[in-house]
Amino acid sequence: MLSFSEDDTNYVSQLAEFVAIPSVSRDAPPETMRRAAEWVANHLRFANGRILETEGNPVVVGELAGPADAPTILVYGHYDVQPTGELSEWGTPPFELTVDGKVMLGRGASDDKGPVYIVLKVAQAFAAQEGEAPLNVKFVFEGEEEIGSPHFPNFLREHAEQLAADLVISADGAMWRPSEPSVSVGSKGLVSLDIEVRGAGGDLHSGRYGGTVANPVHALVQILASLHSVDGAVAVKDFYEGIPELSASRRAEISAVAFDDDAYMHQLELTEVHGEPGYTTLERLWERPTLEINGVRAGGKYTVIPHVATGHVSCRLVPGQDPDRVLQVITEHVQAQAAAGVKVSVHVDPGGVAAYTISSDHPAVRAATAALEHVYPGEAVLLAKIGGTLPATVLFEEVLSAKTLFFSFSTSDEKLHAPNEFMRIRRLREGMRAWEQLWRLLAGGSHRLATK
Amino acid sequence: MLSFSEDDTNYVSQLAEFVAIPSVSRDAPPETMRRAAEWVANHLRFANGRILETEGNPVVVGELAGPADAPTILVYGHYDVQPTGELSEWGTPPFELTVDGKVMLGRGASDDKGPVYIVLKVAQAFAAQEGEAPLNVKFVFEGEEEIGSPHFPNFLREHAEQLAADLVISADGAMWRPSEPSVSVGSKGLVSLDIEVRGAGGDLHSGRYGGTVANPVHALVQILASLHSVDGAVAVKDFYEGIPELSASRRAEISAVAFDDDAYMHQLELTEVHGEPGYTTLERLWERPTLEINGVRAGGKYTVIPHVATGHVSCRLVPGQDPDRVLQVITEHVQAQAAAGVKVSVHVDPGGVAAYTISSDHPAVRAATAALEHVYPGEAVLLAKIGGTLPATVLFEEVLSAKTLFFSFSTSDEKLHAPNEFMRIRRLREGMRAWEQLWRLLAGGSHRLATK
Repeated sequence: MLSFSEDDTNYVSQLAEFVAIPSVSRDAPPETMRRAAEWVANHLRFANGRILETEGNPVVVGELAGPADAPTILVYGHYDVQPTGELSEWGTPPFELTVDGKVMLGRGASDDKGPVYIVLKVAQAFAAQEGEAPLNVKFVFEGEEEIGSPHFPNFLREHAEQLAADLVISADGAMWRPSEPSVSVGSKGLVSLDIEVRGAGGDLHSGRYGGTVANPVHALVQILASLHSVDGAVAVKDFYEGIPELSASRRAEISAVAFDDDAYMHQLELTEVHGEPGYTTLERLWERPTLEINGVRAGGKYTVIPHVATGHVSCRLVPGQDPDRVLQVITEHVQAQAAAGVKVSVHVDPGGVAAYTISSDHPAVRAATAALEHVYPGEAVLLAKIGGTLPATVLFEEVLSAKTLFFSFSTSDEKLHAPNEFMRIRRLREGMRAWEQLWRLLAGGSHRLATK
Repeated sequence: MLSFSEDDTNYVSQLAEFVAIPSVSRDAPPETMRRAAEWVANHLRFANGRILETEGNPVVVGELAGPADAPTILVYGHYDVQPTGELSEWGTPPFELTVDGKVMLGRGASDDKGPVYIVLKVAQAFAAQEGEAPLNVKFVFEGEEEIGSPHFPNFLREHAEQLAADLVISADGAMWRPSEPSVSVGSKGLVSLDIEVRGAGGDLHSGRYGGTVANPVHALVQILASLHSVDGAVAVKDFYEGIPELSASRRAEISAVAFDDDAYMHQLELTEVHGEPGYTTLERLWERPTLEINGVRAGGKYTVIPHVATGHVSCRLVPGQDPDRVLQVITEHVQAQAAAGVKVSVHVDPGGVAAYTISSDHPAVRAATAALEHVYPGEAVLLAKIGGTLPATVLFEEVLSAKTLFFSFSTSDEKLHAPNEFMRIRRLREGMRAWEQLWRLLAGGSHRLATK
């Protein structure tokens, strides 16, 4: 067994350096993104860690050799983070990793800098203590995951040979909840778009023009309101097209999972759950697609008719849905709803991603389950799904013909993408131990990963 | 006749000092508001110009005596301005009055610093050239007009005796359009409110929670969309309650006014007009109430379910509508639309204002018409209405038992309340000449104002 003898305080302060780099891929300057990439490359120096260029933010790669006949894995993660959102809603500075009891708060702590840090430390420990890894390990850390990985597909195609592996293991993709260990066997896809409504050439005084011209905000809210029926289902024609009916056996599996709507509501400070009729909360979360309005921007608190109003919409997709087709049916729906007297346009964000699935019988899933049982003795390991989206998975399958195992030690309640993101400190050490075990299991014995 | 011998350049540079003080009553610090008040008081020194305190921004008052038996007028205006809105939409710095051909651009140029400046210069000219005004003039300039004059009612009640007058003349309240001189014989009322929808305790990751909880943005857009019917009428029950039916004779008067929908649309860069069915554009503008959504604020362009979404709504009211009753029916409508799983609250802005009317037979209206005919020889003076709101009018009637004449030399197309506000430079000189004439007419002869 490896020795992870550093104090938690050391781990936290090392991770704090990484969090301190505000690598917000949506709007940080290129220098900032590069600094974050360099931090990762420096922490992979023992594995020839280095930066490779793309047309966007750079990618960090590295290799740690194992026995010649051992399988090869590719470890994936990302060094970029989400925007902070409203700073006033943060209780601590977002880019100062701050310990508060058993958690550490900061943007990226949980998504994905903490989980990336864990695997860096495991690799370092193998290199330092055993001189090699139990299997051949390659690393690839990108800097555009939070903006839909626009340059990662080309990068991967160009470096396909160099990155070839029998399995990808993703340090991204949170565990479902903190109450038990879980392995994720699927993630939802993602498409997003802006709906923009334009009226007059400029904002108009609501007294001097009000009531005589179409108000772009009225037109936008009419469109946005039409996207759902009152009962909670998505009202866009053909949105659900191609999705297989949820089988009785899958319904039974899901209903066997201990899940309490009341506790869920309580945790979110809500008084009821809400969603597509005919499905339980867990079915909605794991098996059904969503369409959420993420934001609306129009005018302000002054008496004008704004000349432009914009809504941002994103959908999480399930197997059977084609991202381009979903964008098409939404665009058609929006255009059909467009009111007279305003100009309505739909701007689709590039980088739509389909849903992803790995079979629960896959040797990697079985090895991951065993590794978690090792670290969490006596606890049943749940097979869950990720409601979030990991764009790289579909790509790895297409370009490297490799399945992706999600093996993250963040948890989905850790306010990922929201203010006050945090990670549980104990997960650092649990994660290191679990990654060590996973690599050993995949390298040999009954859990050995098949090589291509 | 008075001599207004200064060069336009001098006028513009004096007004520029006033515009340079960013007296945005919605959010400027008290010192800034006071500086604007002091600027006005200093320019009224010949008329004992001075600052009086309120619980909010100070008020500037002054008196310029006329013959003992002459009527008394109270000149009203405001030194506060609207927020700039998006700075990026301004072509010039909003607080640097900038000449561009025949106009001068800047926040407050037209509403209401330019028009206030005109009357200050007229009073100065009377004092300097004739030693007195032709009638007794009192001045009151407030600093909270753009936020609904929250402290002006109390101020006026406390100083009712000191401000008593036979007529109020408002330097606020733009002329209808630049193509001909007009006198306004009414203005719309105003109420406004925020609709706030709250969901979970914080923003939620749209993948990890999407589809399982009510999205506050969905709930808000449903509510906002329900405020109008598809045909453009306000769909709030009893919103139109109390409004007399538009008479055939008034319809005939309005249809006699030269007005071209095509030119109106062209000016606003629109392809069609829009509004309540059964009314022409001018009828909608002058005779019908409006409900406009002025802004929506929720989330942003990232994949979260925002925990709060807010819409700002304002209504322009016509005679017959009671502001409190309108707020009540909207609040009831909103609460009836509130979706399950979210908290909906309505926050009414204080300072609701009823519509205001002055009879077209009133001696002040006839004198104003004659004064404009004097300055614009050969042009017919139109009797128009103001779609905007001048909260002080209702108050002057209630507290001082005095009617208000609108006598402004801004024009409603001058982007009041919007980016790139401007005023026509020629209006400065035309305005000075017209105010002089108006005061002379009200002081004597067939247009003499009746004293109480």
